[in-house]
Amino acid sequence: MKIIPAQEFEMKRESDYGTPEQNAAVKEIIQAVRREGDAALLRYTEQHDKIKLIAGSLRVQESELQAAYDQVEPSFVNAIRAAAERIRSYHQRQKRNSWMDLQPDGSILGQIIRPLQRVGVYVPGGKAAYPSSVLMNVIPAQVAGVPEIVMVTPPATGGTEGINPYILVAAAEAGVTEMYRVGGAQAIAALAYGTDSIAPVDKICGPGNIYVALAKREVYGAVNIDSIAGPSEIVVLADDTAEPSYVAADLLSQAEHDEMASAVLVTPSRQLAEAVAVEVERQLELLPRRDIARASIDSYGAAVVTASLDEAISIVNRLAPEHLEIMTQDPMEIMGSIENAGAIFLGPYSSEPVGDYFAGPNHIIPTNGTARFSSPVDLDDFIKKSSMIYYSKEALLRDGETIMELARREGFEGHARAIAIRLEQEQASQTGGNDHEL
Amino acid sequence: MKIIPAQEFEMKRESDYGTPEQNAAVKEIIQAVRREGDAALLRYTEQHDKIKLIAGSLRVQESELQAAYDQVEPSFVNAIRAAAERIRSYHQRQKRNSWMDLQPDGSILGQIIRPLQRVGVYVPGGKAAYPSSVLMNVIPAQVAGVPEIVMVTPPATGGTEGINPYILVAAAEAGVTEMYRVGGAQAIAALAYGTDSIAPVDKICGPGNIYVALAKREVYGAVNIDSIAGPSEIVVLADDTAEPSYVAADLLSQAEHDEMASAVLVTPSRQLAEAVAVEVERQLELLPRRDIARASIDSYGAAVVTASLDEAISIVNRLAPEHLEIMTQDPMEIMGSIENAGAIFLGPYSSEPVGDYFAGPNHIIPTNGTARFSSPVDLDDFIKKSSMIYYSKEALLRDGETIMELARREGFEGHARAIAIRLEQEQASQTGGNDHEL
Repeated sequence: MKIIPAQEFEMKRESDYGTPEQNAAVKEIIQAVRREGDAALLRYTEQHDKIKLIAGSLRVQESELQAAYDQVEPSFVNAIRAAAERIRSYHQRQKRNSWMDLQPDGSILGQIIRPLQRVGVYVPGGKAAYPSSVLMNVIPAQVAGVPEIVMVTPPATGGTEGINPYILVAAAEAGVTEMYRVGGAQAIAALAYGTDSIAPVDKICGPGNIYVALAKREVYGAVNIDSIAGPSEIVVLADDTAEPSYVAADLLSQAEHDEMASAVLVTPSRQLAEAVAVEVERQLELLPRRDIARASIDSYGAAVVTASLDEAISIVNRLAPEHLEIMTQDPMEIMGSIENAGAIFLGPYSSEPVGDYFAGPNHIIPTNGTARFSSPVDLDDFIKKSSMIYYSKEALLRDGETIMELARREGFEGHARAIAIRLEQEQASQTGGNDHEL
Repeated sequence: MKIIPAQEFEMKRESDYGTPEQNAAVKEIIQAVRREGDAALLRYTEQHDKIKLIAGSLRVQESELQAAYDQVEPSFVNAIRAAAERIRSYHQRQKRNSWMDLQPDGSILGQIIRPLQRVGVYVPGGKAAYPSSVLMNVIPAQVAGVPEIVMVTPPATGGTEGINPYILVAAAEAGVTEMYRVGGAQAIAALAYGTDSIAPVDKICGPGNIYVALAKREVYGAVNIDSIAGPSEIVVLADDTAEPSYVAADLLSQAEHDEMASAVLVTPSRQLAEAVAVEVERQLELLPRRDIARASIDSYGAAVVTASLDEAISIVNRLAPEHLEIMTQDPMEIMGSIENAGAIFLGPYSSEPVGDYFAGPNHIIPTNGTARFSSPVDLDDFIKKSSMIYYSKEALLRDGETIMELARREGFEGHARAIAIRLEQEQASQTGGNDHEL
C-alpha cells in the first residue's frame, strides 16, 4: 500500500452511469413490461436467466420457504435471528410520532407521519446474494410499519427455479410479505408499474447490477427509489496508539469487496502508516479474495500521513467517507469534530464488519462523498409526512388581512379573494346576527 | 367547470423534462462555469439578463439591503415578520436530537444528527419572484441550524443590477447569510461547483424555470437538490355542508397559478358540484388573472361526483394531491382515512392561501402524485445523520463468532478475519495475563 503525504492525496472515486447501449436496453425492457406485463417478465427471464418459468409461477410459495429452512444450517438461522433482533432494536429507536399543536385561538397545526403502503426490495442473485443486505433493506421498512414488503430476486441461473435458500430465510426473518422470482431491469419495471402477478409499489430499494441501477433511475418519479450506491469505502483515522494489524485487517475487509472499493488510512503517525503497510502486505497474501483486494489496494488504497491530528480530521471531513473508523487515544473526543461520515466506528473493537452484519445500525450508507448531504438508510426512508392545518374562524379573522397583503404583493388576487369571501361572509353574518338580536 | 362522474375521471398531470436543445444548452452552461468560473457567470448574465456586471460585483452588499428596507412598505415588513415567526415556530417542532444507547455490555450505539453546512436557495426573478417562497425555502434550513445559507437570484432584466427589494427583505428576515445577483443554469452551476466569488454548497433548493430545473437535475450527485415541482394542485373533498362560494374561491386560487395548475372538487353531492360550477364561473370573470385561471379550469379542472363519501376518499388517496381541503360535516374524522396528501386543510376557514402564506407548515409540497412516497419540505431536508458504533471488548468476544459465521456465509473471509484477529489477540493476552498472575 502506498504511503503518501496529505497534500498529495486525492481520493479516487467512480460512478457508473452505464453505456448508451445499456441505457437503451433498459428503456426497452421497461417499455416491454409496461406493455406486456407478465409475458415480458417470463420472456426476459428465459433470455437472461436461462429459465423457462410457466405463467403464474412467479410468486414464491410457502412450501418453498419451508424447504429453504430445511436446507440451511440451524446455526445460520440463529445468527440471522440474532442480527435481525439487534437491527430491529436499533431502528425502533428512530420511530417518530405524528404531532398536533393546539393553539389558543382554536387552530390546530400538525404533522402526520405514516408508513409507505408498499415497498419493493431488489435482491441480487448468484454470488452477490447477501442475506445481510436483505435484513438491512427490509427491517427498517418493517419497523416503520410498511404493511406490504415485496422481494424480487432472480431465480438461480441454469435450469432451476429455486432461489438461494439463505436469501429466502433472511427475507422471511426480516418480514418480507411477498416474494417473486424475477430479477434485472424487468423486475424493477414490474415493481414500478405493476403486472398481473406483481402489484406496483411506492418505493424500490436494494442493490443490483448496472441494469438494475439504470432501471431504478429510469422509473424514479413514478415511484421513489433509494440512492444508487457507488463502490464501498473505508477511511481509518488512527494515531500511534492503534494496533497496526487491526487497521490492516479492517482496510482489507473493505478491499475484498471489489476492485473499485477504497480503503484509506489517515494518520499523523508515519510509523503507524509504515507498520500498517507491512501488515496489509502480510495479511493480503492469506486472503481467498486476494486478487480483488490487491487490485483495490493498488488503485484506491493509501496510507495518508498528515502533519497533525487536526489535519487528519479535516481530510476526513473533506472525504465524507461511507465508513469511518477512529482508532486513537480518545476516539469519542475526535467524534465531535467529525462533520461528514456515514457511519462512525470508535475504538479498537468496533471493526467495520461488526456494523456490516450485526451491531444494529444500517449498513446501507452514503458513498462517493454524499455523506456531506445524505444519511444511512433508516425509518425516515419508509415514511411519508403530511402537514395538517385546521384554522379557526377566530384565527382567520385575526390574520386574514395580513394573508391578503402577502398574496396581493405576489399578484395573486384570487388567493386574496379566497380569504376575502370568508371575511365578508363573517361580517355579513355578524351584522345579520346583531340584527336578529335587536 | 365540467361535472363528471367518478368512473370517468382521470387526473391530467404534466412533467417537463425539457427539449434536447434545452438540455444541451444547460450542459454547456454548466461546463463553462466549471471551466471559467466567475467569467462565465458574467458572460451568461450579460447574454440572458442583458446586464453587464463588473467582476467582483456579484455579491449583494449590505447597503443594498438597507436600501431595500427603505423601499418597501412598513406593512409588508410586518406581514413578512409575522409569517416568518409562524413558519419558524412550526418548523421548530420538527427538531430532532442525536441519541445514544448505552448497552449493559459497555457498547454504545447512536445516531448523530447535524445540520448541513452550506445550502443554496434559488429565487426566480421577474414576475415569479415570490417573497413567500423565500421564507419557505430558507426558514427550515435556518431552524435546522445550517450556518451558511446562500441566495442566488437574477438581477432585474434591462440594465439595472438591482434585485426586487421585497425578495431582499424576505431573504434577510428569513436568515439568508449571503446573496448573489446571478440566475439561470449558471447560478446552479456556481452553487454546485463553486467559483471565485461563490463557494460551493451541499444542497440546492428553490423553484426556477426549465433551465434551472434541468441544471438542478444535472448537478445532482455533486450536491443534493430538492425535488423538482410539477404544476400546483388542489383537491377539495366536500359534502353538501360545504359553502359553494368558498370551494369555488379556493379552486380558483389554485387555477390562477398557471395554465397547467389543477383544481378538482371531489364530492358525493351532485348539488354541491353544480353550485360550485356556477360559482366558479361567476368568480372567474372577476379575477385579474382570469385568462390563466380559465385555461387551467378548462383543461385540468373538474367537479367529480362520487357515489359515496368513501368513494370520494378513495379517489383522493389514489390522486395523492399536493393540497387537499376537506370541507365536510366532520373533517377530522375523514382525515384519519387520508393516506396520501401533501398538506391537508380542514374545515371552512382553512383556505389554501392560509397555508401558502402564513399558517406555519411549509408550502413546498410534493406534486404529481408523489405524496404517495414523499413529504413537504421540512427540517429533515437540511440535516444529515451519521450512525455511531462503539463496540466494547465484552460485546465483541460475545458476538464475534456469530459475525464471522455471517461474513463467511457471504464469502467474505477478510471480514471474518478482521474479527478473528481481535479474538485471537484477546485470547493470547488473556493467556499472557493469566501467566503473569501465576
